[in-house]
Amino acid sequence: MRTLAQKMTAEFLGTLFLVTAVVGSGIMGERLAGGNIAIALLANTIATGAALVALILTFGPISGAHFNPAVTLADAMEHGIAWREVPVYILAQCAGGVAGALTAHLMFSQRWYSLSSHQRSGPAQVFSEFVATFGLVSVIWGCSRWQARVVPFAVGCYIVAAYWFTASTSFANPAVTIARSLSDTFVGIRPTDAPLFVVGQLAGALASTLLFRWLVPNLAVHAAEVLIPHSE
Amino acid sequence: MRTLAQKMTAEFLGTLFLVTAVVGSGIMGERLAGGNIAIALLANTIATGAALVALILTFGPISGAHFNPAVTLADAMEHGIAWREVPVYILAQCAGGVAGALTAHLMFSQRWYSLSSHQRSGPAQVFSEFVATFGLVSVIWGCSRWQARVVPFAVGCYIVAAYWFTASTSFANPAVTIARSLSDTFVGIRPTDAPLFVVGQLAGALASTLLFRWLVPNLAVHAAEVLIPHSE
Amino acid sequence: MRTLAQKMTAEFLGTLFLVTAVVGSGIMGERLAGGNIAIALLANTIATGAALVALILTFGPISGAHFNPAVTLADAMEHGIAWREVPVYILAQCAGGVAGALTAHLMFSQRWYSLSSHQRSGPAQVFSEFVATFGLVSVIWGCSRWQARVVPFAVGCYIVAAYWFTASTSFANPAVTIARSLSDTFVGIRPTDAPLFVVGQLAGALASTLLFRWLVPNLAVHAAEVLIPHSE
Amino acid sequence: MRTLAQKMTAEFLGTLFLVTAVVGSGIMGERLAGGNIAIALLANTIATGAALVALILTFGPISGAHFNPAVTLADAMEHGIAWREVPVYILAQCAGGVAGALTAHLMFSQRWYSLSSHQRSGPAQVFSEFVATFGLVSVIWGCSRWQARVVPFAVGCYIVAAYWFTASTSFANPAVTIARSLSDTFVGIRPTDAPLFVVGQLAGALASTLLFRWLVPNLAVHAAEVLIPHSE
Repeated sequence: MRTLAQKMTAEFLGTLFLVTAVVGSGIMGERLAGGNIAIALLANTIATGAALVALILTFGPISGAHFNPAVTLADAMEHGIAWREVPVYILAQCAGGVAGALTAHLMFSQRWYSLSSHQRSGPAQVFSEFVATFGLVSVIWGCSRWQARVVPFAVGCYIVAAYWFTASTSFANPAVTIARSLSDTFVGIRPTDAPLFVVGQLAGALASTLLFRWLVPNLAVHAAEVLIPHSE
Repeated sequence: MRTLAQKMTAEFLGTLFLVTAVVGSGIMGERLAGGNIAIALLANTIATGAALVALILTFGPISGAHFNPAVTLADAMEHGIAWREVPVYILAQCAGGVAGALTAHLMFSQRWYSLSSHQRSGPAQVFSEFVATFGLVSVIWGCSRWQARVVPFAVGCYIVAAYWFTASTSFANPAVTIARSLSDTFVGIRPTDAPLFVVGQLAGALASTLLFRWLVPNLAVHAAEVLIPHSE
Repeated sequence: MRTLAQKMTAEFLGTLFLVTAVVGSGIMGERLAGGNIAIALLANTIATGAALVALILTFGPISGAHFNPAVTLADAMEHGIAWREVPVYILAQCAGGVAGALTAHLMFSQRWYSLSSHQRSGPAQVFSEFVATFGLVSVIWGCSRWQARVVPFAVGCYIVAAYWFTASTSFANPAVTIARSLSDTFVGIRPTDAPLFVVGQLAGALASTLLFRWLVPNLAVHAAEVLIPHSE
Repeated sequence: MRTLAQKMTAEFLGTLFLVTAVVGSGIMGERLAGGNIAIALLANTIATGAALVALILTFGPISGAHFNPAVTLADAMEHGIAWREVPVYILAQCAGGVAGALTAHLMFSQRWYSLSSHQRSGPAQVFSEFVATFGLVSVIWGCSRWQARVVPFAVGCYIVAAYWFTASTSFANPAVTIARSLSDTFVGIRPTDAPLFVVGQLAGALASTLLFRWLVPNLAVHAAEVLIPHSE
């Protein structure tokens, strides 16, 4: 049994390291890639996916390792977390995300924050965020009930893929979106573009949760079921 | 026990996301790689392999996560799926694949579909598809009976390798082949080249299934056997 | 209980696909990398490591998935395989390796074989092969007794690393060395350089096996022991 | 039950191969990357992360696979290792690290050692090492009590990420820092810069250990607890 303070700390630290990984590897990648953006994004992708695996394994047993308000809200809809804990989780995630951007800036000797000028707007970008978050939450719902041990690997793999298959590089996380609006670097997003990203993300999480209510009924009953082979 | 509608939805969604990953990461890779095709293909490879791991983990417990008519047919030959469900599976896979190409095009602000002009013909290409699908189905048969939990990782790893060791970049999937004929991008295939690809794929799947009938007799009996150490 | 014919087929097919992965991804990587050898080797590395994971998972339950005469000899020294089966294993591996090179050449529309002109000689190269194979066999001995399930991943990871940390790109396998001498491509080795590579490999395998006899005494007794935490 | 000599050998060999992987892949990457440092670092990253997974799996059951004085000290603080064994561990790690640099130099036909001229100084670098080691030790504490089987993968993934998200490329290990000061290559560090790196590393390890004492109380009691799902 963890106390709420312990859970908050885990969500804060986890989101901090996640955003540090995203922003820091973006800075390092851009510095070293000699103008080849694909190589910079490849480094950014691998660092983010690997960080997610390590961080979910590390903090999962304490707080569930959400690091993401969209995931916390989806989890609350399915009674995986009590609604009264939701605001605390989201606050810890947003604060951790901002602290993570600051940590990255300090390590790379940059100003501690700077509003991003990286434009990411238009319906295709918002649709990308819808798809990205729909997929992320689907992966979580699809894996977590039957085979919770693989969730860290599934989420890490999913984000690695989604960085490349969405036009927005798959933020898929409101807390990370806010933090990235405070970083005028490779991975930033203009503050004015952030709200629609969050709307797309929450819509994707909601759509996925409603779908999986039908796709995986009686979730609790199947909790111990074996995996991959047809579950008939 | 899943209903057929739930299985169809899983196959549709899984194949949709798989093709979105293939096509979307192909577009992103080509856009950013500055003309270095190896870097574009590396991004395409990593995104596809990672997506496969996440998607098989997510939808495997619902439908078996075939996403591939060649796998469904091989599974039916071995009585893993009832023959009456086969047409439904294949229909869902093909529809999902086409929807996946559309989704990728929409996210990247391209026309919703365009016939590919990417030539992939000649006996070496068709032989490549035979080898690619023979290997894929062998991996599935080799792993799934003894150690089903590792199938998602084995398949993801196999496709990552096969993208590079086959001259055709290893489509190895009729539904994905059809979908890629509708995408005039990095990963496309001319509609006129698609039928022979499918022939090579089905021949590879058939050859592997016949071989593994001899290689792993009494499959059901060995289902609970331990792995890796010599199984004597 | 597998028959010897089934084991031979597994060793033949596994080594075939392994060499196809090495040679094929070498050709593809060199063709696409635009002269940047690091990118070609990165593709070659990822394809080889991923193929190893998939192939060991696939054929491990049938034959033990050696694919490597040095591993077979080390295993026989520790009574993991009967000495009378050793020549059959090595024959299947060498034949599979040659067939793998041919398969890759056919897929890429090259002559079915060509003696390599890629020079790899000198004491530093032979020392590299000693180190590479010492490490490979150590990984196998270190993992296989306590935690056989992770061997495929440990071996795949090891080879990915060793491609880059040895000056010889870590052949570490006599059957693969022979096969690569028949491929005048990126991954080839001059036939005249092959014998000393094999000597270095066998010496490395022998040294590691003798060391682990002392490092892990009473192997059988510890078979069921838990892992990673200090095994006291 | 392992003898201290066996544990020392495991720590020596493991740290040797770890540093060989770091230094060797750095040399190979720089030689082949044609001046694109991002590609060289990508190769260096993948080789190091993959080596860590293989080496922790291999030597973990014998010595715990610390390979790192900061980890050994943190482990002793929590009574995971007896204090009287600590000096022996650290000695074996430092000797192994130096031997690893030599091995890499020999394989690549370089002078057996050379003092590095690679400047890595300033508060941002030292802060990076604090963050890097804080994260590394957190990953170990977070994973090892509940789910020791995943520690090798979690640590490998963490280091892959940390290479890119810290400005210092995350040495995070005093023994490796000493060894790298003896290698005037891509991965070296000036001997005069090494002491502050070690200070940052030890401070990070200490801070993480104190935090996790509060975050995960009654560690022993929870040892058998299931993972990822909220541990309430």
